[in-house]
Parts: sequence; C-alpha cells; structure tokens
Amino acid sequence: MSVSLLELSKLVDGVVLGDDNCLINSVATLSAAEEGQISFLSNSKFKKKLNDCAASAIILKDSDKDEFSKNCIIVTDPQLAYAKIATRLHPLAKASNQIHSSAVIAQTAKLDASCSVGANSVIDENAIIGKNVIIGAGCYIGCDAVIAVDTRIYPNVVIKHGSLIGKRCIIDSGTIIGSDGFGNANDNGTWVKIPQIGIVIIGDDVQIGSNVVIDRGAIENTVISDGVIMDNLIHVAHNVIIGENTAVAGCVGIAGSTRIGKNCMFAGQVGISGHIEITDNVTCTGAANVFQSVKEPGVYSSGTPLEPFKQWQKSNFRFKKLDEMARQIKNLEKIILELKK
Amino acid sequence: MSVSLLELSKLVDGVVLGDDNCLINSVATLSAAEEGQISFLSNSKFKKKLNDCAASAIILKDSDKDEFSKNCIIVTDPQLAYAKIATRLHPLAKASNQIHSSAVIAQTAKLDASCSVGANSVIDENAIIGKNVIIGAGCYIGCDAVIAVDTRIYPNVVIKHGSLIGKRCIIDSGTIIGSDGFGNANDNGTWVKIPQIGIVIIGDDVQIGSNVVIDRGAIENTVISDGVIMDNLIHVAHNVIIGENTAVAGCVGIAGSTRIGKNCMFAGQVGISGHIEITDNVTCTGAANVFQSVKEPGVYSSGTPLEPFKQWQKSNFRFKKLDEMARQIKNLEKIILELKK
Amino acid sequence: MSVSLLELSKLVDGVVLGDDNCLINSVATLSAAEEGQISFLSNSKFKKKLNDCAASAIILKDSDKDEFSKNCIIVTDPQLAYAKIATRLHPLAKASNQIHSSAVIAQTAKLDASCSVGANSVIDENAIIGKNVIIGAGCYIGCDAVIAVDTRIYPNVVIKHGSLIGKRCIIDSGTIIGSDGFGNANDNGTWVKIPQIGIVIIGDDVQIGSNVVIDRGAIENTVISDGVIMDNLIHVAHNVIIGENTAVAGCVGIAGSTRIGKNCMFAGQVGISGHIEITDNVTCTGAANVFQSVKEPGVYSSGTPLEPFKQWQKSNFRFKKLDEMARQIKNLEKIILELKK
Repeated sequence: MSVSLLELSKLVDGVVLGDDNCLINSVATLSAAEEGQISFLSNSKFKKKLNDCAASAIILKDSDKDEFSKNCIIVTDPQLAYAKIATRLHPLAKASNQIHSSAVIAQTAKLDASCSVGANSVIDENAIIGKNVIIGAGCYIGCDAVIAVDTRIYPNVVIKHGSLIGKRCIIDSGTIIGSDGFGNANDNGTWVKIPQIGIVIIGDDVQIGSNVVIDRGAIENTVISDGVIMDNLIHVAHNVIIGENTAVAGCVGIAGSTRIGKNCMFAGQVGISGHIEITDNVTCTGAANVFQSVKEPGVYSSGTPLEPFKQWQKSNFRFKKLDEMARQIKNLEKIILELKK
Repeated sequence: MSVSLLELSKLVDGVVLGDDNCLINSVATLSAAEEGQISFLSNSKFKKKLNDCAASAIILKDSDKDEFSKNCIIVTDPQLAYAKIATRLHPLAKASNQIHSSAVIAQTAKLDASCSVGANSVIDENAIIGKNVIIGAGCYIGCDAVIAVDTRIYPNVVIKHGSLIGKRCIIDSGTIIGSDGFGNANDNGTWVKIPQIGIVIIGDDVQIGSNVVIDRGAIENTVISDGVIMDNLIHVAHNVIIGENTAVAGCVGIAGSTRIGKNCMFAGQVGISGHIEITDNVTCTGAANVFQSVKEPGVYSSGTPLEPFKQWQKSNFRFKKLDEMARQIKNLEKIILELKK
Repeated sequence: MSVSLLELSKLVDGVVLGDDNCLINSVATLSAAEEGQISFLSNSKFKKKLNDCAASAIILKDSDKDEFSKNCIIVTDPQLAYAKIATRLHPLAKASNQIHSSAVIAQTAKLDASCSVGANSVIDENAIIGKNVIIGAGCYIGCDAVIAVDTRIYPNVVIKHGSLIGKRCIIDSGTIIGSDGFGNANDNGTWVKIPQIGIVIIGDDVQIGSNVVIDRGAIENTVISDGVIMDNLIHVAHNVIIGENTAVAGCVGIAGSTRIGKNCMFAGQVGISGHIEITDNVTCTGAANVFQSVKEPGVYSSGTPLEPFKQWQKSNFRFKKLDEMARQIKNLEKIILELKK
C-alpha cells in the first residue's frame, strides 16, 4: 500500500512542504528510515538528526522546519499526526468472517456473521458477539457476555460470564475480565467467600494490555469508562469505577470500591487503596502510593530516591528517628530562645 | 429460588423481626434492593439509608434496629451473615458430570465420574481428578497432578506436573500453579539453571485469584496451607510456606524460602523478601516492604505519603541528607550545652 | 538412572573423597536425603548438619570437609556444582517428536520433524519452529514467529506475530511475548493508539518465568539479550533493551525505551522508569525505584523500613516536613553562631 503525501497530510490537518505526490508505504524512525518511508520529529532536541535522515518525508512542527529542506508535513502535534498516519499505513487486520472449525460455540450463543473466532476458542451459552468482532485463538467467552462491534480480543483472553465489552475495544492476550472479586467475611478465623454477583462493564474505545485482571463487582458492578487505556499486568479490584480517558500504566494495582475520575494518568507500579476517590485530572508518578482520596487535580508523587546501598541504610536508620529528630529541633529552639533572653 | 426469612435466619444464627415467611430470592445493596431481595447494614454510619430501602428484609445488628421497623434478621456480624445468605441464594454451579468432547484426556489420567472438564482442556498422564471437581475451558492439568473433591478450576488455568490441590479450592483464570522457581547458579557470569524438582502443595478451602503464579519448590516443596485466600497477580516464589487462613491481596510478591505464619493479612503490593520468617497474626498495610523477619504480631507499614510533585522533590532531596541532618542536630546540642555552661 | 560419584565429579571439575563408584540416583536436601542421593553444603553455617545427613555423598568446599568423613565431591562452588549435577540426574524431558492431533498448524508454518506440539496449541501462518523445540498445550504461536532449536515453551504461552526466540530458551506458562506496547497520542483528551510495528527479539539461553509480558517495539524492537533470566509477573515495555546475563526477579516493571546493561540484578518489585540507561553490573535491592539513569556499577536501594503502624504514621507525618526541618536546623546554626560571638 502506498499513499501520497497529500492524502496523508489531509488525514492530520497538516500542510505539505515539497512534493505532494511523493508516495509513502510505511513509517520508520529518523535513523532507520529509507526511501518510501515517513518519519517524525516530536522533540526539537533531535533536530540535528533531520539532515541525515533518508526518509521520503518527515512530520514536524513549523518551528522545526527551517533546518530541513526536503518533503515534510507541517502539523501542530507531530506525535499525534504520526499515530494517525501510522494507523493509515499499518492498519489492523480486518475480521476474517470465519469461525475456526476447532472453536467450540454454544448453541445459544449469537455471533454476527461478520465476526471471526480463532482456533480452539470457546464461546459459552447466550454470549453475544457483535459485528466485525475478532476473537483470537484460545479465548474463553463466558455465558451471557456481550462483545460489541469492532472489538478485538487477542489470543488466550478470558471474558467471564455477564461481562459487557463496548465497541472498538482492544483486549490483549492473557487478560482476565470478570474474575471473582476478593470478598470474604471472617468467621472465627476462617474465611467465608462472599459471592461476587456483579459484572464488569467496559465502555467504548477502551484498550487493555496483557495479563491484566479486572474483577467483577461484589453486588454492584466494576466500570471502565469510554476511552480508558490500560497497560499490562494491572489489577482492578471489584467495584472500582474508572472515568473516561484515564490512562493506567503497567503493574498498577487499584483496590476495591475506589472511584477514579476522568483524564487521570497513573504511571507504572502506582498503588491505589480501596474505598477512596480520586478526582479528574490527577497524575501520579511512578510507584506512588495513593492511600487517601485526592480532591485536587495535579501531579502527585511518593517514594524515596535511589541511593547507593550503604547511604540508603543510613537514611533508613534515620527515617525511623524522624519524629525524635523533629522533637530535638523543637527542644533546641526552646533552649536557644531562653539563652537569647 | 425463593427462601423464607426464617430459613435464612437459621443459616446465620439470627433472629427474625417481622414476617418469618417473607420470601427472598436474591441479595442487593441498600440503595438498589427491590421487593423479594435482602440487603445488609454492616456500617452503622449508613443507618439513614435504611428507611429508603425497598428490600423485603435487611440483615443488621441489634444496635441498629431501633431505626428500622420492617422485616429484618438480627445478627452479631451482618457481613458474615450476608456472605452465608448470599451463598445460599446465589450458589455456585454444580459439576455438570460431563467431559467436553474437545477436551484431551490422557489414557492414564483418572477422573471421577462426577467431575466436569471444559472444552479444549488438557489433562495429562496420571493426573487424578476428584469427585465433583469442575475444570473450566482451556486448562492444562499436568502429569501426576492431583485435584481433590469439590475444587473448581476456572478457564485457562495451568496446574503443572505433580501439584497437589486440596478440597473445595477455587483457582481463578490465568493462574499458574507449579511453574519453575527462579533458581540459578552463576558460572563465570553466565547462569546455570537449577532443576526445580519440588512440587506445590495446596491445602483445603484455599482461594486463589487470577493470573497468580505459585512456583514449585527447588528441592523441597512450596506449601499453601488450608484456608489461605489470595487475590490476583500474586507471585509466590519457590519453597515459600504460607500458614493457615492467611489473606494475601493483589500484586503481592513473596520471595523464595520465606515462611509466613497463620492468620496474617497482606494488603495490596506488599513485597516480602526471601529467606525470612513472619510470625502469626501479622498485618502489613498496602505496599509495605518486609525486608526482615517479623517476630511480633501486629500491624506494620512502610512507605512515604503522597505529596504534590514539587513538595515531594524537596522531601526526596532532604531524605538523602537525613544522616547529615541528624549529625547536625547532635552537634548543635553539644554547642548549646557548652554555651549553657 | 544411576550415575557414579566419579562421573558426577568430572562434570563439575571436582575431586571425590571416598568411594568413586558410589551410585547416585537423585538429589535432596541435607536433612531429607537418603541412601542413593547426593546433597550439598553451600553455607558453612550449616556444617553441623553434615554428620546427621544420610545422603550417599555430599558436594562441599575443601574448607568444610574436615568435619565430614563420608563420600564427598570437593569443589570451589558447591551451589554451581549442585546445579550441574542436579541437571544430570533430573534432565528435562526430550522433545517427543509428536504433534498432537488436536493442535492447529497453519499450512504455511514450518515445523522441524523433531519438534513436539502439545494438545490444542495453535501455530499460525509462516511461523518457523526449530529442531527439538517443545511447545506445550494451549499455546498460540503467531504469524511469522521464529523459535530456534532446543527452546521450550510451556503450556498456555502466547508468542505474537514476528517474535524471534533464540536457542535453548525456556518460556514458562501464561507468558505473553510481543503484545502491543502502551503507545498513545492524546487528541484533545481522547487517546489515539499508535500502531506497534516493531517486534520482540529474544537471544539464546534466555529463561522467562510465568505470566510475564514483553511488549513488541513501537517502531524499533524490544531486545532481550543472550543469557538473560527473568522470574514471574515481570512487565517489559516497548523498546526496552536488556543486556546479556542480566537477572530480573519477580514483579519487576521496566518502562518503555529504557536500556539496561549486562550482568545487572534486579530484586523483586523493582520499578524502572522509561527512557533511562542503566549501566553494566548494577544491582538494585527489592522494591527499589529507579527514576533516573544509573551510570556507575554498584548496589542501589530505595524505600523506607517496615515500622509498627503507629510509629510509621509519625515518621510519615515528619517526612512531609523534612524540608522545613532542614531549614530549622540551618536557622538554629545561624543563631548559635551569633550567640557564640
């Protein structure tokens, strides 16, 4: 597939400088690009790489163009334009309209004729699989689950009974949607499991990475809103609600019944306690621990800096004495005040 | 299924106030409940919700009943009573007594006639599957594994060779039991794998969440005792021993050869070093790091508070100087002592 | 299988003291060993156990042998010798040279006649499976993936399209290689997925544990070099490069585009930020957070100590005041200096 620079520029509201008719077949990095490829410069810091770049065209900001005299598309956000152009040049496969002969489909399941189901996948009773849905090999789709149009489920995913998955979602391999929440009551030392009778509701345009787990609700439901994006190995406990377009990076854990706002960003390994509320537009940096509700938008962090082991041992020893140190300082202040008199 | 309030009350050693014969068919929250449903009030804080609740009956403590004049079951622990009543009204499915035609069962495997095996599951040589065991779709049960009566294995679980799983366990999807421990010896810079020849032994009434990994022992075994409950995405390394009724929340990591007592509770993302011992009745709060043995029961924590990013940068900068600060304080004390003289 | 002590000693460049012809059939711990078994003493601390040990022979250091008069193999590194001897006595199964009838193999896939493929596994278009490769049950091997000789893939693994896996690797169950990286551009609040068109390249002799996720590159590739060993539940984001023989323990998360050197060691739950560089021979202790590049070899740590909950609350309260405390100290120093005058 080759697409003209002009056509690509229209896709991203950009302006072509150079040859409108130049044909592009794929994307590449500034340093690896060859003839027929398009690259992009997002960070002006790397401007100097432009002249050595062998790409047929480059996506860049107006402010970076002076250093560059070959074909380019001028846009306000090169990374966003790159995302759109790369999607045009490297489209996801279409549904094959085939159900593999080894797939096991319950008689009561309803599959649109346009969907595809991979080898050895299992679709259980009363599940509904929408138009153009692609289900990879080795998946299990539980009873009464509903998967809406254009959603892609990659190999070895489990969608448990009753889960509702929106349109145009992508769920990557090894992910489990709708597993039992961790709900137990204590009966004189032994644990009594509390039936988890809620479901998981996932909105439209949600991306979920690999080996993620999203628990079903205990009584009410776990809700992932439209446009949420999630990386790998994330734990979402029962009854969590995540607002629209929030981004969750790898290894994040979110405990039960917590409600997270819209447009939040959680970096890798962030831990979020249960039964708290995080408002819209909150960003947490890597490995931050959110033990209490966050009521103001902004960027938050926790944790301590990396130190050489021996220095860290000293810092750690002193950390335990912090309260004592604070009281020592207060005491010194008192004595000095008296001395001054 | 409908059950009378009287019958439900007997299940939980409770006392009915109101209509003994009132029929209940399901559970719901205080705010969502409708006629025919039962709800519960565990936290007295939400007492005010009682009067607006449309449930046919409510489970509550004696001390909360004065505000409420409709049908109720009086118990000492409403959450525990709810767990038992919900289990009665929403029972888990029984074994279907069927082995799906697509399942691949080794000739030497022994399956009780009452068990069920889902589509495309694989049971390998000499595995023994007990009475009423339910194995979901897409599972792999390794050679010589033994799964005792009434245990449920959800879709896409892997139980490796030799693993012994007790009675009435629940193992949720994507979990791997008996994978190789991380044992290597270093040979002039390159790693030599140490064969992992132990097994995993899991007691009775153990619950294990989704995408958990429990490694087999290196020479001796990894042991999960009776009544242990585990959430999702937990890592249990080789030769770990976990005592009875200990609860482990999501994303916890337990390094090799560590021995954990009974009735412990580990909140989400707790990290536990290898080769240490944690006594009975230890609770660790979220994301705590347990680097050393814990010899006294109690509640333990580590970590630092969430702060706005800029404030955190300052705290972090000072953390590295803690030892210096402590010495400065000591020095000031000395000088002041001299000044006072 | 029984092997003479002499033959075992040659395997590890060791010297037999006692009966060269003593036959050994398996390994065991010092305390559990019986006749016909071999054990090892690595830590001199446990010397006293030697005399009660019923093993037919013991692997130990020359400096520990005085306390022991029975059969032994003297070596410089007993743990390494144990690894090699255990591998000899407990070898991994050989490829069975069989493709299970339930496996689904694409017509364009090329499988060496010596490899074995487990039940219900799926091998997609143009995949190439090398000599003696063993693929367990329930795996999915994507289009164009290449798996080199003697590599073992355990049950329920997913290797996505285009991934290149080296020789003699072991990939444990539930692991996903080549899933989409977490790449998105923000378009006025909504996320636009960036196609992930790179691949994963895994070198020779790499060990990967269970439920690990290694993302494919965004444009360029994610690279795991020869001899790297990885434990369970590890997240490796797109475009990460890990150098030779680096060891990564359980629950570690490595963010995108980070480059890690050779012979590094990361303990459990370490978190590593994106777009940084870590030089060779860096060791990070458990749960350390690496937010910045590490340019000098050595041992690094971060985090705070475990404390009883109430003491921790105090330390945490003071942590937020650290900057204030530092300024108070400085102020006191000033005042005292003046007083002294």
